[in-house]
Amino acid sequence: MTVYLKDIPLKQAQERFYNALVENNLWKILRTESIPLDENAVGRVLAEPVWARISSPHYHASAMDGFAIRSAETIQAMPTSPVILLSPDQTQYIDTGDPLPDWADAVIPIEQVEALDQQGKPANELRKPTSIRIRAAATPWQHVRPLGEDIVASQLVLPAGQVLRPVDLGAAAASGHTHLFVAARPQVAILPTGSELIPIGQPPARGDIIEYNSIVLAGQIRQWGGEPTRHPITFDDFDLICQRVQHAAESSDLILLNAGSSAGAEDFSSKVIEHLGEVLVHGVAVRPGHPVILGFIHHKTSGGKIRIVPVIGVPGYPVSAALTAEIFIEPILAHWLGRPAWDPAVIQANLTRKITSPAGDTDYVRVVVGQVGEKTLAAPLARGAGVITSLVRADGITILPAGTQGLEAGSSVQVRLYRSANDLFQTIFAIGSHDMTLDLVAQFLAGQNRRFISANVGSQGGLVALRRGEAHLTGCHLLDPTTGEYNVYAIQQYLPTMPVRLITWVNREQGLLIRKGNPKGIVDLTDLVRSDITYVNRQRGAGTRLLLDYHISQLHLSLPNIKGYTQEEYTHLGVAAAIASGRADCGLGIPAAARALDLDFIPLYHERYDFVIPHSHLSGDLLNPLFDLIQNPEFRSAISSLPGYDLSQMGNIIIP
Amino acid sequence: MTVYLKDIPLKQAQERFYNALVENNLWKILRTESIPLDENAVGRVLAEPVWARISSPHYHASAMDGFAIRSAETIQAMPTSPVILLSPDQTQYIDTGDPLPDWADAVIPIEQVEALDQQGKPANELRKPTSIRIRAAATPWQHVRPLGEDIVASQLVLPAGQVLRPVDLGAAAASGHTHLFVAARPQVAILPTGSELIPIGQPPARGDIIEYNSIVLAGQIRQWGGEPTRHPITFDDFDLICQRVQHAAESSDLILLNAGSSAGAEDFSSKVIEHLGEVLVHGVAVRPGHPVILGFIHHKTSGGKIRIVPVIGVPGYPVSAALTAEIFIEPILAHWLGRPAWDPAVIQANLTRKITSPAGDTDYVRVVVGQVGEKTLAAPLARGAGVITSLVRADGITILPAGTQGLEAGSSVQVRLYRSANDLFQTIFAIGSHDMTLDLVAQFLAGQNRRFISANVGSQGGLVALRRGEAHLTGCHLLDPTTGEYNVYAIQQYLPTMPVRLITWVNREQGLLIRKGNPKGIVDLTDLVRSDITYVNRQRGAGTRLLLDYHISQLHLSLPNIKGYTQEEYTHLGVAAAIASGRADCGLGIPAAARALDLDFIPLYHERYDFVIPHSHLSGDLLNPLFDLIQNPEFRSAISSLPGYDLSQMGNIIIP
Repeated sequence: MTVYLKDIPLKQAQERFYNALVENNLWKILRTESIPLDENAVGRVLAEPVWARISSPHYHASAMDGFAIRSAETIQAMPTSPVILLSPDQTQYIDTGDPLPDWADAVIPIEQVEALDQQGKPANELRKPTSIRIRAAATPWQHVRPLGEDIVASQLVLPAGQVLRPVDLGAAAASGHTHLFVAARPQVAILPTGSELIPIGQPPARGDIIEYNSIVLAGQIRQWGGEPTRHPITFDDFDLICQRVQHAAESSDLILLNAGSSAGAEDFSSKVIEHLGEVLVHGVAVRPGHPVILGFIHHKTSGGKIRIVPVIGVPGYPVSAALTAEIFIEPILAHWLGRPAWDPAVIQANLTRKITSPAGDTDYVRVVVGQVGEKTLAAPLARGAGVITSLVRADGITILPAGTQGLEAGSSVQVRLYRSANDLFQTIFAIGSHDMTLDLVAQFLAGQNRRFISANVGSQGGLVALRRGEAHLTGCHLLDPTTGEYNVYAIQQYLPTMPVRLITWVNREQGLLIRKGNPKGIVDLTDLVRSDITYVNRQRGAGTRLLLDYHISQLHLSLPNIKGYTQEEYTHLGVAAAIASGRADCGLGIPAAARALDLDFIPLYHERYDFVIPHSHLSGDLLNPLFDLIQNPEFRSAISSLPGYDLSQMGNIIIP
Repeated sequence: MTVYLKDIPLKQAQERFYNALVENNLWKILRTESIPLDENAVGRVLAEPVWARISSPHYHASAMDGFAIRSAETIQAMPTSPVILLSPDQTQYIDTGDPLPDWADAVIPIEQVEALDQQGKPANELRKPTSIRIRAAATPWQHVRPLGEDIVASQLVLPAGQVLRPVDLGAAAASGHTHLFVAARPQVAILPTGSELIPIGQPPARGDIIEYNSIVLAGQIRQWGGEPTRHPITFDDFDLICQRVQHAAESSDLILLNAGSSAGAEDFSSKVIEHLGEVLVHGVAVRPGHPVILGFIHHKTSGGKIRIVPVIGVPGYPVSAALTAEIFIEPILAHWLGRPAWDPAVIQANLTRKITSPAGDTDYVRVVVGQVGEKTLAAPLARGAGVITSLVRADGITILPAGTQGLEAGSSVQVRLYRSANDLFQTIFAIGSHDMTLDLVAQFLAGQNRRFISANVGSQGGLVALRRGEAHLTGCHLLDPTTGEYNVYAIQQYLPTMPVRLITWVNREQGLLIRKGNPKGIVDLTDLVRSDITYVNRQRGAGTRLLLDYHISQLHLSLPNIKGYTQEEYTHLGVAAAIASGRADCGLGIPAAARALDLDFIPLYHERYDFVIPHSHLSGDLLNPLFDLIQNPEFRSAISSLPGYDLSQMGNIIIP
């Protein structure tokens, strides 16, 4: 029985699989089809070049509303000695686009002629004069679009491999086409497997996993030009999976088995592929996504022939699944469609914090990228393969090649961008203390062409980030125990030389989050030292933790007696989740977090939560939409619907 | 009767129209709808934020295949003094994703334990041991994905205005959603009008214009998130157009009337809109695209209410139509969908040649952009509003603001990119002499992740471009009349200090292109001075023109006696088109151009057509796919199918 996968390097895995595709004559455009030339062709890939069948224009056309003339008859025309041309022998009115009469070789725009009637007076009908008077010579072919000005019959209009855009369709139509030869969409079957899976919409019991990888994979396949088919969930049953795979093979160019690709008790994917065909690769040295399987099945067609159908065992963790698709499936679809593979823009950025990497693996680190002053920064996101939100938030991927042990904060890295580099300049980096209103800020600013990215490192961490020039602003609630004032002393300590504005954001309550109904009868901080109470703390440098420490020392409580004091969470919601799940009994936090997870709340303190903003970031217009929110009634009412907030001081400038 | 439009500045036109939309409560998301959460949601725009309904994971889940344990019971474990935990009270095997038992607080991966049977020997079934032996302490919560690790119930998962990507669907599903509230697709009716229009597929007679603007517009609308409806062509009939517009209004949010937006004899659009509603703007100071109409019609609904439906009179020239859509329609759709308006990446580039601009107009200049060495270059494309291929070729747009008279070659301009900035580094700039094989090169390289852009400025112009560092290579066929050698002398003259490689591309015939059947009985160059013969020439600096001049002087022919000597075309196909259309009787050129337009050909000379490549562009891998073509049998056979080419010297290196 295999327990461990044998991870091989990424490049080797790709080569082994793609070479097998080449050998089986599957590394080219799979099928072509002729489709009508209409708006539905946008995004399809040309399988053959478009050569012009006709010229455009296909005749000499007037480029203006005006009069067709023979240029030779106008040579003498001057302002002081005009030339008169008679209609219809010497001149004829034509609209833009009309064909030039055979005898004519130029057009004079209507606004440059005097149209005359039979008496030689200004004609009533400008376009049907008896004659026209002109006062300047016309040059041959002026204001004429000669035959073939745009397209000459037989020339290349669009190359094969072109991903069709709206204007391409125009050029193809102009050159005489009514249909286009494009690559047929590759058919990709997606088979979710796993007894623990439930479809979306079914209320999940403990241990149930909502099956959504198939939706993400189907969206990716569609986006890359393939046609996905999502099959129903299959339980972990070897025979049943074999049967479903064989059935899917009938109408598929590629089969994705998700998941069961690891080596757990019920991971059948590799056995199924082995049984129906051949496993080429099981395990790739890439994180996330290492338990990937690359192989083939031999499908017997109705005609009795054996057809080779590639199969990919896609890992079950959502980030692994999405990245596996990007790494292995997109390039295959590119070849099957005859278009260039995805080639993201790459920028250079500096890491905001240290990252470690398992030696030997190619490591895909999701990062948020932003421009703070002169610096382009890449902030690593959660590394867990289960954290789909890390891909949602990611602006790009930094690839640490196999062999890299990790990188220090400040290291220069290349980032493969998911977004346009332009977007990075619309990103506000808020690094500091967590508050529930930051979610609302992100929500409201999204409609204003701003992305608001908050990294929760605590108030002190935020001030350090400002000092390093790695954030546009910091949310901060640091109590000076000697004066009872907030933030001013901390700014003097952390940012002695940096001019910053300190502006009040909200006043908020802090207190103890406890389970509904307060089953352990907690009253205040003195309960923390009870032996039956487990606390959940915020991380070092968080204002909430400093608040706790301050009051613990005021109450002369013994730190070692507080169980769970070293159990750290990075957000108020994290603390709330720990209590809701039973991992802890209480934690200091804000009432909005308690309400979010249906906990009870014991109010204890009030505190001021401010924004600290370096003057250097106030000059541009990046932050203006944020400041506008302070007066936005919808935004204020959204905050007021959360418990424990007081907006009466919002926008007060403490340090100008 | 209005003959002239009154052009107003672009900004003013946009403001007037958009303000009217605001006043009529049409400057917001028009309608929302709930759609199922599946792959079809990709590209839709969220009308409401997605807040998490449940946490993900929604229970504490094992992050590994391994054994659930109580970390407190492992504290003593060391390599030399292992701890033994009994199943099922102290340990229990769980797969990745399984819920952690209530009593456990950590997981030890299966590969880090020794599974034992009843006798204390290695167990046969690793996952069902009697006990496990461990040799290292576990930390609390190790290898556990705590409840809410990815998403905590109630947090913001996706903001409103998000254009949905595959991973977004995953996050929405993970947080408990089955449907998404998105903006409904705005309905846009496209009405092509014009008696001269014919649908694609109908063989065009002289004066017929193939109607394809509606396809381009429909493609754009679809791409920007709207739902286009293409109506049939309407003849120029005031009443009929009124009727069709009213009918379209019933089911449309926006009506596009194309064209009839100018002030010609049969331009009814403004009268129709005036009749059914109100014209706000007729004429915008922007080129191409100035005869645009912005207005409203008052549509009486079946319920008897008056509904305001915006109407845009889109100019008829294809480039004008496509740019009008980009300038006026895309921002409206963005508002109706609640997403950010298109905000292209902008780069700085240097113009390769002078451009002039009509004063007072905002000028949209299509450019090809490429990177040549250190320089980012923008080469202006054909300016004509009828040249749809200029949009097909364009990498971006340079906007010359109103008031700019033009810009000199070398000027630094901003380019709004249609492509990813990455693509620009895959672009080969070939500036120089025209040859029919360059189309084939473009076609073959498109499949190799290279764009091959050829600008036809003649051989001499190409050498000048190399000298200025504005091209990667030049196609060149310059005969030295004194030696009969090709290109070497010209390179010495034009590029005395630049190290270049000279490599033979093709040998080709040159001769006279004449109409089919040779109706004027042309025999050779001496016929050019006949009074009944009109010649069409290549532009100054073209090798073909120099070839002509050389032989004219050899034959002692009188230049002034050659009619049409000053009539210049920039390509062989241009010369062929001039002859095919009757604008000229003959021209010097290559046989492939004659065959392309079904002309006859009188062979006269053989010549060598070489590539000149500066050494500095040979170091990277940009040009490698081009060199690979020389040995590519498919490519060689494609050239051989053109008449008049000899490939026996292809790839010969003349100057290393």
